[in-house]
Amino acid sequence: MDIEKANALATERMMEARPVLVGLGKAIDVVPGMRENLLLHAGPPITWERASGPMKGAITGALIFEGKARDMDEARTLVESGQIELEPCHHHGAAGPMAGVICPSMSVYILENKTHGNRSYSNLNEGYGKVLRYGAYSEEVLNKLRWMEDVMAPVLARAIDDSGGVDIRALLAEALHMGDEGHNRNKAGSIVYTTRLAPSIARTAPDPETAAQVLKFLGDNALSVLNPVMAACKGMADAAHGVEGSTVVTIMARNGTDFGIRVSGLGDRWFTAPVATPQGLYFPGFTAEDASGDIGDSTITETAGIGGFAMASAPAIVTFVSGTPRDALNATLEMYEITAAEHKYFTMPPLDFRGTPTGIDIRKVVEKGITPRVNTGIAHKDPGVGQVGAGLVRPPMAMFEEALVAYAETYGL
Amino acid sequence: MDIEKANALATERMMEARPVLVGLGKAIDVVPGMRENLLLHAGPPITWERASGPMKGAITGALIFEGKARDMDEARTLVESGQIELEPCHHHGAAGPMAGVICPSMSVYILENKTHGNRSYSNLNEGYGKVLRYGAYSEEVLNKLRWMEDVMAPVLARAIDDSGGVDIRALLAEALHMGDEGHNRNKAGSIVYTTRLAPSIARTAPDPETAAQVLKFLGDNALSVLNPVMAACKGMADAAHGVEGSTVVTIMARNGTDFGIRVSGLGDRWFTAPVATPQGLYFPGFTAEDASGDIGDSTITETAGIGGFAMASAPAIVTFVSGTPRDALNATLEMYEITAAEHKYFTMPPLDFRGTPTGIDIRKVVEKGITPRVNTGIAHKDPGVGQVGAGLVRPPMAMFEEALVAYAETYGL
Repeated sequence: MDIEKANALATERMMEARPVLVGLGKAIDVVPGMRENLLLHAGPPITWERASGPMKGAITGALIFEGKARDMDEARTLVESGQIELEPCHHHGAAGPMAGVICPSMSVYILENKTHGNRSYSNLNEGYGKVLRYGAYSEEVLNKLRWMEDVMAPVLARAIDDSGGVDIRALLAEALHMGDEGHNRNKAGSIVYTTRLAPSIARTAPDPETAAQVLKFLGDNALSVLNPVMAACKGMADAAHGVEGSTVVTIMARNGTDFGIRVSGLGDRWFTAPVATPQGLYFPGFTAEDASGDIGDSTITETAGIGGFAMASAPAIVTFVSGTPRDALNATLEMYEITAAEHKYFTMPPLDFRGTPTGIDIRKVVEKGITPRVNTGIAHKDPGVGQVGAGLVRPPMAMFEEALVAYAETYGL
Repeated sequence: MDIEKANALATERMMEARPVLVGLGKAIDVVPGMRENLLLHAGPPITWERASGPMKGAITGALIFEGKARDMDEARTLVESGQIELEPCHHHGAAGPMAGVICPSMSVYILENKTHGNRSYSNLNEGYGKVLRYGAYSEEVLNKLRWMEDVMAPVLARAIDDSGGVDIRALLAEALHMGDEGHNRNKAGSIVYTTRLAPSIARTAPDPETAAQVLKFLGDNALSVLNPVMAACKGMADAAHGVEGSTVVTIMARNGTDFGIRVSGLGDRWFTAPVATPQGLYFPGFTAEDASGDIGDSTITETAGIGGFAMASAPAIVTFVSGTPRDALNATLEMYEITAAEHKYFTMPPLDFRGTPTGIDIRKVVEKGITPRVNTGIAHKDPGVGQVGAGLVRPPMAMFEEALVAYAETYGL
């Protein structure tokens, strides 16, 4: 087994994938395997019983949004009875930030990898604070989701068509030169995205005031592009999956209870371990006591070579995840120790345009005792509250060890 | 004479100035002292005879635009006969990039310094390549100017009103955290600007297609915000001018033939010397042989503490001005040697959020033998061609020496 060759192929596929945002549609209509009684969620598989507070809150909110429940009790009954099923976003080519709950009537971005043909999906970003993905589900949260679905989604769908598509790999390459790292700091990428769609929004919206509202919502939200970016990274990582003999990680994802990874050469098996709690900076009124365990599919960004791995490009991010610009630089430098490649298209000016560390190699993680760096938002541990801060976290080493043992067994080493 | 105290006051005024884009109007209607037979231009005073190629080209184009000349011969006759007069933008509270020609019927941005009340002005940015400010004046150039004036300007005027104004100091502070330095790299600032105005453009444009065209023009031009930024820097520098005893530079400007400076404590006297030629990278098909002498009022950015002085924040700029990210860092570090203050609002993440070097002190320039660093576009030396590259340049030391002698005479030192 030539592992180096397998990893070179896997990372080549990851980097050459070119996901383009090509459309927007209802999850029920476009996400493979989506069905009326299904909710998608972040991370590896989870049950109601074991679900974290923010995951329970987001499931409740999604079922209220679908008109299937009125409160958390009804939501729990539906899920525990099996009338509503839960499956990971990642089982359906999708990735969702934080709780990552995608329900049938929610609109999702559709990305197509123009190099290898695979499609990937994510929902619309709601902005900051009291939002479904952080487990909030008050009337205010639901009303915003309804506005996004009824008003914004049709405008975006037409604008994306009219624009001819948005190349998210190119957008990310640009944003990494503008102080973003693509996970927790998407400030530049979000306005590149807004600017790119703005002419089409103005041209195709039903009326000027609606165009203005959508442009304001997208432009004011420094995370507008996070979801297309996550779907793009999902498309890249999927392209790298299934390479015989490869030890490259193709999924890292958390559901608030378990962290899970998949490995290119190890098929669809999840390797999981309990999540850690992020360390970081808290919004006024909150402390580390309030933090939920690590949650979200957004670690697909680190999996694809950006996010925490590209922090050297985003020194200003330390103002909200803590640390100093030097720490940000060191985070990236450390990640070269555990990766198989340097990215061909994602380069970092502060490191003389060196490519980002790309393709986590489980062998190196275990051998060097270095786990991946992750930038993340922090959810309140209780359902219904929302975001309380942002910070840094590492996945548990146990998953990588377990994966390496499985690799040795699978390939008879 | 307490020079330190005077410089502290001058730089305090420069940094506390808060120029807000409040409107757009025809130069003839809003620029103080503008008149029908006047053209404003970049740099210190100049005659037709001594004017550089790009300056002659821009003057010709402006007079064709005004319907007063049909070609360069007619333009020369008008200027040499005195029927058309030339005066620096800086004599009218304005600043114009490259040739910086502003004619009476051209629209200008109006900025108001909310701290000290002074107003400042600049024209609209035309984008790259064959453009008036680089001395091009073909039918294509003129047609674009007419579209900008007839279609874009009214839309922008209404949008700025509708937006309630754009705080350019705040925008710059944000852009410096997104890889801009505010002079040659305004990529982030330009999309922040476009995003900020987009809802108002969509809301107030006469029809959706016009809104789309204006949004595309602004969003595709990585220098859209350069002119509001220059006007903002002019407003800041003007606020620092006229402080008794101050040795801080309040204007640096070039007309393609002469470089000129003014000093806060030395009234309205220009100190001038022949310009150098920028060193840099050239567009395909052009070489250093094609370069005009240094030209433009855009050095008002360095005067106010950004541009070449903030290069540490913009490592990616080296891809178009030459050098390495380390050079960019060193450029900023060197400028601390010749400045009086560190900016309170313009901070640079790569230098641990240190304030940009602000307020060039002519004493330090002469004493240390260090002239200011300037990032600049490079015009073709012949009229009618346009931009040929971008690079770095330094102003001549002789001006600073002359200013220092004048200072000693004025204050009897």
